[in-house]
Amino acid sequence: MGLLTQVKPNSNDELDLQLIDPGRIKIDCSGSYIANDHLLREQYHSPTPSTTPSPQASDSSSESDGDVDGELNGFKEGESESSNEPKGNAALPPDLKKADISSNKIREIELTTTNLNNEYDLTKNITLPKHNSEVIHISVDIGGTLTKLVYFTKSHRGDGKGGGKLHFKDFQTENFSNEVLKFMIKLIQKSIHKKEVPPITYIMATGGGAHKFYQLMTKTFRKYKFPMKIIAKDEMHCLIKGLDWLITKIPNEIFTYDLEENNTRFIPNPYTHDEQIYPYLLVNIGSGVSMIKVTGPGPNGFERIGGSSLGGGTLWGLLSLLTEANDYNEMLEMAQRGNNENIDLLVGDIYGSNYNKIGLKSSHIASSFAKVFKKLRFNNDLNKDGMLNGSPRLTPAEKLAQFKQEDIARSLLYLISNNIGQISYLQALRFGLKRIYFGGSYISGHKQTIHTLSYAVNFWSHGDMKSYFLRHEGYLGSVGAFMMGPNSENLKNHESNSPKSNKS
Amino acid sequence: MGLLTQVKPNSNDELDLQLIDPGRIKIDCSGSYIANDHLLREQYHSPTPSTTPSPQASDSSSESDGDVDGELNGFKEGESESSNEPKGNAALPPDLKKADISSNKIREIELTTTNLNNEYDLTKNITLPKHNSEVIHISVDIGGTLTKLVYFTKSHRGDGKGGGKLHFKDFQTENFSNEVLKFMIKLIQKSIHKKEVPPITYIMATGGGAHKFYQLMTKTFRKYKFPMKIIAKDEMHCLIKGLDWLITKIPNEIFTYDLEENNTRFIPNPYTHDEQIYPYLLVNIGSGVSMIKVTGPGPNGFERIGGSSLGGGTLWGLLSLLTEANDYNEMLEMAQRGNNENIDLLVGDIYGSNYNKIGLKSSHIASSFAKVFKKLRFNNDLNKDGMLNGSPRLTPAEKLAQFKQEDIARSLLYLISNNIGQISYLQALRFGLKRIYFGGSYISGHKQTIHTLSYAVNFWSHGDMKSYFLRHEGYLGSVGAFMMGPNSENLKNHESNSPKSNKS
Repeated sequence: MGLLTQVKPNSNDELDLQLIDPGRIKIDCSGSYIANDHLLREQYHSPTPSTTPSPQASDSSSESDGDVDGELNGFKEGESESSNEPKGNAALPPDLKKADISSNKIREIELTTTNLNNEYDLTKNITLPKHNSEVIHISVDIGGTLTKLVYFTKSHRGDGKGGGKLHFKDFQTENFSNEVLKFMIKLIQKSIHKKEVPPITYIMATGGGAHKFYQLMTKTFRKYKFPMKIIAKDEMHCLIKGLDWLITKIPNEIFTYDLEENNTRFIPNPYTHDEQIYPYLLVNIGSGVSMIKVTGPGPNGFERIGGSSLGGGTLWGLLSLLTEANDYNEMLEMAQRGNNENIDLLVGDIYGSNYNKIGLKSSHIASSFAKVFKKLRFNNDLNKDGMLNGSPRLTPAEKLAQFKQEDIARSLLYLISNNIGQISYLQALRFGLKRIYFGGSYISGHKQTIHTLSYAVNFWSHGDMKSYFLRHEGYLGSVGAFMMGPNSENLKNHESNSPKSNKS
Repeated sequence: MGLLTQVKPNSNDELDLQLIDPGRIKIDCSGSYIANDHLLREQYHSPTPSTTPSPQASDSSSESDGDVDGELNGFKEGESESSNEPKGNAALPPDLKKADISSNKIREIELTTTNLNNEYDLTKNITLPKHNSEVIHISVDIGGTLTKLVYFTKSHRGDGKGGGKLHFKDFQTENFSNEVLKFMIKLIQKSIHKKEVPPITYIMATGGGAHKFYQLMTKTFRKYKFPMKIIAKDEMHCLIKGLDWLITKIPNEIFTYDLEENNTRFIPNPYTHDEQIYPYLLVNIGSGVSMIKVTGPGPNGFERIGGSSLGGGTLWGLLSLLTEANDYNEMLEMAQRGNNENIDLLVGDIYGSNYNKIGLKSSHIASSFAKVFKKLRFNNDLNKDGMLNGSPRLTPAEKLAQFKQEDIARSLLYLISNNIGQISYLQALRFGLKRIYFGGSYISGHKQTIHTLSYAVNFWSHGDMKSYFLRHEGYLGSVGAFMMGPNSENLKNHESNSPKSNKS
């Protein structure tokens, strides 16, 4: 039976996630590495190359073979852009290389922030030098805010033994039909046109949008006469599967935050023994937060035990009204420069000192954002009706102008991060878990966020629990879906029913 | 040794809270009652008298004797206002009595909201018909946002056997010197001038501001030549003491929220047995949140086990920037009318349906406030630089105008309340506590808030934990401090050193 006849999109109104399980592909991870040095967002501001460990970084230029990012970045019809991806010395993004980094040119460097942040996302590629077998699928994790896509490209080396690369790309879910589908179509078309690779015929889909956009994907691929098969996988299972793959296969993937040295610290070698890994709590922070207890490998080893609606969507939602930040990256940059003491009510503001009896320092936040209404009301001498000395009340712009946007951004970043840290601690405590992995695009390699989450867990647990972070934090679900890809049996089916015959 | 010489304000730079413990006064609570029917804020909109149980309400008119609220409301020097307190039939606030409540006059009633809310605070008085012994102290709980004051007035009945009333009054802490101190001075002056009552000579102070404003209070009273003694008490101890007094002495003080019938339910009789009360978790929601585990009576029966910086100050702070509400009451009214589905990203928005596997309904909030940035970005067709079709970015006012303030208020009320509910559940779970008392001015008798807290606790605990609320929710600390008042020995000292001699 050919693949095309197996796809029955119209009879599939009620989607059963577990209906089809084609098994798992075997990705050869030996010798894999992340071919760039960039870990934390703030390091993009650094005028000197960072020193995070990635021994292979210096030869990453030779790894650009086979990349399709460049060709596909301008994926809108009729457009063609050259690659944004840093090539050559990956330790220093190209804009920094061009910039004069003497002190009076700092502004020039800062102006490149937006570009640099885009590159932050593009430098997550994982090189798989030994993986030479065919890959006929891509994966997509369609979240409430972001859609995360993972795909594989083969090296250009003629003998087919040059290995390849995993690529990671994200989009706004709101642009699903405009951007994600178009990007997928380009990827598929490219794979069909290239004689030396088999065409992509599977989409491994996860996240809430795997349900919501299932019909749209099916309809679109039929329109293009692509014989695609979309396999939807359970979100929590994919997260765990992705985390498992990353921490057991990829060197320098995991890092922790050293609260004393105030810096990140890599775990160079992947974990190989179960006792290094289990049990743990995975806290995945996307638009909202999911918390998953994991006691062992396999589909019976995990359980979603809680969550929170206060996540990345909350932070971005509030800050899109309260600041002029145009995207999440700008917002993180703002927070980095802000001072929350102008916004938050500290223990010292209430007590005039520490509240030693219950262990609260004067610098602890007693009430997030609580200085704002005091300043608005009392600095402006407003009366009870909000009148300003008899004049009409302040406009929203006048009110906002009394605060630095950076301070607001920092206060809210702390608010969300502290809160997630505390709930994570309480959930971990329920089950005696000592390791907490934080994933999800909320973190985005942002040092303050990582520090705050680590600090909160350490504070509440009195140092008894440890926080772990991941370089591919936002891609756990899509990596998991990718690793669950179609099994070899389907691959055989596919080979005997080459979709290339559907071309023209 | 006289009291005056015991007060050494200048040598008291480092305040030791536990230095002085003059014991406790005995307040005779027999026959006590709350002389009004108003429990929930929304009932003020009701055109018919509410039906909450308070059998004595009909004779509350006779209880106005001895009130000083009216005389003291206009406490600013040179001002004199008549009482705002509802007299006569307390079941219906005076503005409602005046208003034509036919359907086309609803607006008129709504306009009185602010007045009615003020009255909400004024109808908390507790009548103590049997307490006839002298009271020479007031109490004050100085929080990060509000200062809560409790004082006693004797009935005007000539024989001195008419009992009296406890009064509850709150102020903005920011106005401490302008309002709180002036109100205290008026109270003290009044007590000095009245021949039939002994003058107030003790201030029982608690809350963070008891430290911060200690010197200011001392200095001010010395200036007025009042022989006041300020006794600062530990905040957590006062909260527990106040809760204990209210739930064991005052009928119809405790209520619960019936999630099926969607209404409040009184617990008519005070608790008399320890097993009805202990153990429990007290969650006190002021500017920030304190959580106190209580396993038994007395100072060794409680421990602060956690807290959160996301409390009333956070809600008010955010809404003072995001809405035109002039005070907390207006903000609560706004939330009552709002629809959070325009602001929050629901499970159904992401999945297109329920996520049955993990028990999330499509109506559950997946990410609070997360629809806002989507609407701003995609409804306005903004490009990546925040440009609107080539025009400059939206102003704060233009952005805010795309959302209903009421919807924003409701979303944030849910955000804070759900979050507190979840953390309360997790903290209670740690210690196997099944009863959670919610106190603090955050609640303010607001039905949505009470519903949300109850719902969250019920949802997370699968009905295993029960939420309790209090009519004097905001006054636990000040009631506790009041009940800890000076002991009879000090009273004797005081009588032999009458401060009246300091007059003139």
